[in-house]
Amino acid sequence: MKFSKSSDLALHGLWQLAVKKKKMLLVAEMARAQKVSETYLAKVFQKLARRGLVKSTRGKKGGFTLAKSPAEIAITDVVRAIETDEPLFTCLGPERGCRGGDQCELKKVFAEAEQRLYDTLSKYTFKDLIERSRADCRKAWLG
Amino acid sequence: MKFSKSSDLALHGLWQLAVKKKKMLLVAEMARAQKVSETYLAKVFQKLARRGLVKSTRGKKGGFTLAKSPAEIAITDVVRAIETDEPLFTCLGPERGCRGGDQCELKKVFAEAEQRLYDTLSKYTFKDLIERSRADCRKAWLG
Repeated sequence: MKFSKSSDLALHGLWQLAVKKKKMLLVAEMARAQKVSETYLAKVFQKLARRGLVKSTRGKKGGFTLAKSPAEIAITDVVRAIETDEPLFTCLGPERGCRGGDQCELKKVFAEAEQRLYDTLSKYTFKDLIERSRADCRKAWLG
Repeated sequence: MKFSKSSDLALHGLWQLAVKKKKMLLVAEMARAQKVSETYLAKVFQKLARRGLVKSTRGKKGGFTLAKSPAEIAITDVVRAIETDEPLFTCLGPERGCRGGDQCELKKVFAEAEQRLYDTLSKYTFKDLIERSRADCRKAWLG
């Protein structure tokens, strides 16, 4: 189990925006930094824009800026914006005549585990992580 | 993000074995219950056998029995046996000259979140869940 490549892309793109402290980064610039196509990067960042995490500027010189300060963006906000709402565990019970629904005990356990995971990701913002990070982890994204 | 279909299959298969309380279930019987091929079911259950959760009997009448009591099988044991060891988050830093390695702050946060998730899944065994489950959720797997 792992988060999608789109989540990785979103996290690193926001990290780059937060570290560079420039008002705007071009789509081309961000895509080059992450070695992905501009189309793919733009698609992922439109999802972040819809959740109010970044603002987009259209056109040939189009790009993205942070819509909030790094202190206001928790890691969970990013992952929630990108990942689907599909639960961790799929109950096959209904196909077999179990009408437990939300009362399915396996489902409840996985829902609790998922909540713990997102609670942890809620505790940290980009500001926290950048402040604690090694200098070379910040510098790597400045080029 | 979600666990693989193989994890779902393993969890429901173990649930069926625990609920039926029969010494052995045939591969054919388990595959039919979950509407998957026998080959796929056997492949998933071999992984559980390698972790000592079930015992397999070979041959035409081959099948699986629980190798431990339901009270000794935690949900996390099943998921750990099936899912890959890939971390939730992939650090792209090394490709960009960041030598943070395990000191990468994003990596640390995701490792902590993953730990919380598995800690929760460790708290519950099949015995707990079956005891608490609705009668129709047990009965569904008896047929």
